[in-house]
Amino acid sequence: MAYQHILIAIDFSEQSKQVCEKAKQMAADNQASLSICHIIEDFPITDFAYEPMLNFDLDLRQSLLESGEKQLEKIAESVSIPKERQYLELGVPDNDIVRIADEQKVDLIIIGSHGRRGIKLLLGSTANAVLHHAHCDVLAVRLKGD
Amino acid sequence: MAYQHILIAIDFSEQSKQVCEKAKQMAADNQASLSICHIIEDFPITDFAYEPMLNFDLDLRQSLLESGEKQLEKIAESVSIPKERQYLELGVPDNDIVRIADEQKVDLIIIGSHGRRGIKLLLGSTANAVLHHAHCDVLAVRLKGD
Repeated sequence: MAYQHILIAIDFSEQSKQVCEKAKQMAADNQASLSICHIIEDFPITDFAYEPMLNFDLDLRQSLLESGEKQLEKIAESVSIPKERQYLELGVPDNDIVRIADEQKVDLIIIGSHGRRGIKLLLGSTANAVLHHAHCDVLAVRLKGD
Repeated sequence: MAYQHILIAIDFSEQSKQVCEKAKQMAADNQASLSICHIIEDFPITDFAYEPMLNFDLDLRQSLLESGEKQLEKIAESVSIPKERQYLELGVPDNDIVRIADEQKVDLIIIGSHGRRGIKLLLGSTANAVLHHAHCDVLAVRLKGD
């Protein structure tokens, strides 16, 4: 019945710490392993002039990955998650979070759920999309101070 | 950090037991109180002939509530939730689950998340809607055997 492998999905917002704290406690309660992931939303760089922009593209992606890796490492250290269980990717957040959870045989995904106001209320959140597609349990932590 | 009051939201599907088992364990881990709710989806009874249909309407609602109460009581007993923490209502499931959670100062809602196939994949689930609107954490338990 207890969870064995918990995946934290964070977006680097200020409230990521709340998600990590909750995950740490859940992992302790369940004696579960913890992994952590961050997906950098990939975006096509429009080439208005139909010119190859590959260099710029690759450079940008590379620097996004490098800066993301540093941030993820810092947060992961605060909850004692070793390098080999830190996942950083460029992609589509909900799809890739669910895929990593499947690949790593995760049985609980913990993700922050942001407050929705105004126009955002009409849009789904990443937490909603993850819940929709996940093959395991999902704990959405309601973030304070949104 | 620990949860103090957990609300189980069930739909009387065969898998409700899975949600209750998970909630029982979470309550034990957190030394939290447990409440349980079931919302019977209310529906307007169309009066094709513009005749008053109040009697039929009230009778039907009454019998839905009575049969729901018995089912809820049985499930609640299996996880030792006393009568005063069993909530049965006619209404709109996601809205009313969130409202009960607010009123009862719940800090975690536990709800089953059904598999989505075919056309259902396009529709949101109650779990999704609850997550979207809840003011507290939501644990969606991925139901097996859908």
